[in-house]
This record gives sequence, C-alpha cells and structure tokens, in this order.
Amino acid sequence: MISKGLLKYIRSLQIKKYRLLHQAFTVEGEKSVAELLRSDFELETLFATQKFLNKHTLLLLKGFEVVEVGEEELSKAGAMETNNAALAIAKMRPASPFDWQEHPFVLALDEVRDPGNLGTIIRIADWYGLSSIVLSENSADFYNQKVIAATMGSFTRVLPHYVDLNAFLENRPENVPVYGAALEGENVHRLELQPAGVLIMGNESNGIRPETMQQVTQPLHIPGRGGAESLNVGTATAILLDNFFRNL
Amino acid sequence: MISKGLLKYIRSLQIKKYRLLHQAFTVEGEKSVAELLRSDFELETLFATQKFLNKHTLLLLKGFEVVEVGEEELSKAGAMETNNAALAIAKMRPASPFDWQEHPFVLALDEVRDPGNLGTIIRIADWYGLSSIVLSENSADFYNQKVIAATMGSFTRVLPHYVDLNAFLENRPENVPVYGAALEGENVHRLELQPAGVLIMGNESNGIRPETMQQVTQPLHIPGRGGAESLNVGTATAILLDNFFRNL
Repeated sequence: MISKGLLKYIRSLQIKKYRLLHQAFTVEGEKSVAELLRSDFELETLFATQKFLNKHTLLLLKGFEVVEVGEEELSKAGAMETNNAALAIAKMRPASPFDWQEHPFVLALDEVRDPGNLGTIIRIADWYGLSSIVLSENSADFYNQKVIAATMGSFTRVLPHYVDLNAFLENRPENVPVYGAALEGENVHRLELQPAGVLIMGNESNGIRPETMQQVTQPLHIPGRGGAESLNVGTATAILLDNFFRNL
Repeated sequence: MISKGLLKYIRSLQIKKYRLLHQAFTVEGEKSVAELLRSDFELETLFATQKFLNKHTLLLLKGFEVVEVGEEELSKAGAMETNNAALAIAKMRPASPFDWQEHPFVLALDEVRDPGNLGTIIRIADWYGLSSIVLSENSADFYNQKVIAATMGSFTRVLPHYVDLNAFLENRPENVPVYGAALEGENVHRLELQPAGVLIMGNESNGIRPETMQQVTQPLHIPGRGGAESLNVGTATAILLDNFFRNL
C-alpha cells in the first residue's frame, strides 16, 4: 500500500517547483519504468504490481525501496489514466556543463512549450543517436511526467541542458554552423547536410525568436506542396534530423 | 445561448455511432472553424463568440444557423478544454469511390488507432499535397473530434476512404508498387523513391498486419543509430513522405 505521506509526495512531483526542491521525478508505466531500471538513474522508491515485480526481478537488485501495490492504487497515485505495472520515483541527474567536443551535432530547442512535443522530440533525438539536447530556459521541463511518458523510455539516454540559448550560441566554437527551421529558409533537399553544428527548432506558435534567429547561419525549410500552413514541431524535427543523417 | 436539445446533440456527436446516424460532426476552435468556413463543407449550425463573428463576417454568408454564445458556454459544450472562438456542426462528406487515376501516390493506414496520430498524419499528408487518405476499416475515425483538432484544419483538404485494405490492395492497377514501413525493410536513404504507388503505415503497437504485409512489394526502413526501439507512426509517416517527395 502507498502511505498517505508518499502519495502526497508522488503528487507533489507533478509540479515543477517540488521536482526542483526534491531533485526527483516520477516515471510511470511498464515500458518507461523497465527502461529506467535498466539505466543508471538513481531510484528512491518503486511502486509496482506483483506481475511487474515477477517479470523484472533481476532489475531490482539496486538498493531502493520496493512497494508492492495494486493496479487501482497505482493508477490513482500517478498521472496516467491507467497503469497496471509500475510507478517509480527517481532522482534527477545533476546538471553538467555542455561539452562541445563531445557533441559535434547539437539539437537545440527555442521555447518549445508543449510537454508532448518535447517528449516526442527526445524520442526522435534518441533514434538518431543524440545523447544530449539543449533547451532554452523557458522550454517545457524535461522531467514533467507528460514529457517522460512521451519519450517512451528515451529520457534515459538523452541528457537535457537548459541554457541561456543566445549566450550558448554566442560562445560556440569558431566555424560551428547554426541551422534553424524557418518557413522562408533554404530547401533542405537541395543541401548536402552533414551532422555537424547546431540545429534550432522554435516555439509551436512563434517559431524561433528573432534574437535567436540572428545567430542562425543557415535557415532550413521543408518543402511542401499542399494547403497545410505548417508542420508540428516534432514532425519538423524528425524530417530535418533525417535529412542530416542521410548517410546512416 | 445553446438550447438543452442542441447541447445534447453536440455532445452525442462525440460518439461515432451518433456521428454516423446524423452524418454530422463537430469542429472546435478558431483556426479549425475558420478553415471549415473557407471550405466546401456544409454546415448545420455555428456557435461562436461575438469576437469570432466580427472577425469572420464574410465567411458567414452561406445559409446556416448562427448562434452567438459566450466563451464559457462554448468550452462547456465541446471537447476542448478552453474554446474562446467557435464550435461548428458540419455535415460529413458523402463517401466516394476511390479513383486510382486521380491518386498516383496513395497513403494507406493499416489500423492506426490513436486519434492524435491520425490527425497528425492527415496534417502531414496535406503538407505533401495528398488530397486523399486510405484507411483500413478498424482505423481511428476521421470525424472524431480529437482527430479533427489534431489536423489543424487539414481535414478540409484530405478526403478519407475507409476500405477493406486487403481487397483494396488486391484490386490495385497492375504494376503499382506497395511500400510498407517495417523495422526490417530496405534503408529508405538508399532508394530513389518517387511518389507513385501505395505507402502503408501500420498500427502503433503491432505495425502492419501480416496479411497486409503480404501485399507489400517494398518494405522500407528509416535508419537510426540510437537506443529508441521505434518511432511514433506520425513521425515515421513524416520522414517517409519527405523521402518520397525529395524532388519538391
């Protein structure tokens, strides 16, 4: 059973202020929690059904509290509508400085606000093997439960770096190109893109901020021919990354 | 004000059975309703705030009932959390037979079930200029309010064709290739794809059904190099369509 105190703690972690205070966040559902257990994230507590515990015995030998719970209790505690497997409280990874040498190609988000979009983008970044993502300070919170859910486990492999994006771009090493998604950019199919430099994706409604756009050395456009005015930022990120990684 | 009877009618249209019975569906929010008014869809009733009505006066001269309502009433009537603009009841378009001659390139969905995914895919289809989409009978309903919302207006430009997908593929004209998204397909970057033929996208969990896969003449794979096991079906559709339309 989940004690009243723990229930209150779990629910508080749905709010960013408390996640920051406790440096902890929640992960829900079979696939996400299984990936968490396989990762190097530190866990505080695992709440899980007997079925989940039986299936993942080998992943539980890490010295954290395990509480067996029923499905109904689990669904009630978390943010997912139904959860018949597990909910974990994990510690955030400590913020680390960004190392340009380690990341020849950088995906940077300029005020992407929707948690679902951020989660989708993290999953795509992971697909293309990016182990970091750079976010402007006002972007959605990586540890938001909707973000975590939408990553489908990829949150364990992609490290977030929240930065002052303009300062970050200004201080980049010499000759690093900055690509930016823009409706009036160059046709992405006409360029021979290589995965080196920074690719910036902008806000859902407003795109890349004007001050950020000043740092863009090569605006990119995805050509279409229909009536849709724009693509969703997750969709556009996927298409652009696929164009950068055509030699895979 | 929205009468009790109309409110009941609006709410009934959130259920497929009643949409089919009345051959009608609802459209919510500023952008979607504005696109609806610019399209050739037939409207039954438009519920809108004074602000929306003032902004779109010219689009209202089409002979349907217009009811001015407050924002709170509007949000309460519809499925959107907040709606400060409009809600319309529109007539479904009559089903029309699929014409292979008109559609040299066909996007077909095999049991895509999530309304958000279907909406995203319709928006992407519209971006690439596809005016039709073929769906297996068990796919999500095109006129579901979550689908309509996720299309961001593209539902007005893309016509759905629900078919027995296997019969549809069996009866295709000679020499029409059938592409299918599959994890063990050919690297999409190594092929010179032209937008002719059928592209099939499969179910969120299970991919393309085995019986449908038998009709696929060229399985396609999107190469990745990270830890993510798969891409969301909307994301994968976007990347594949972009690879078919590289000559835009």
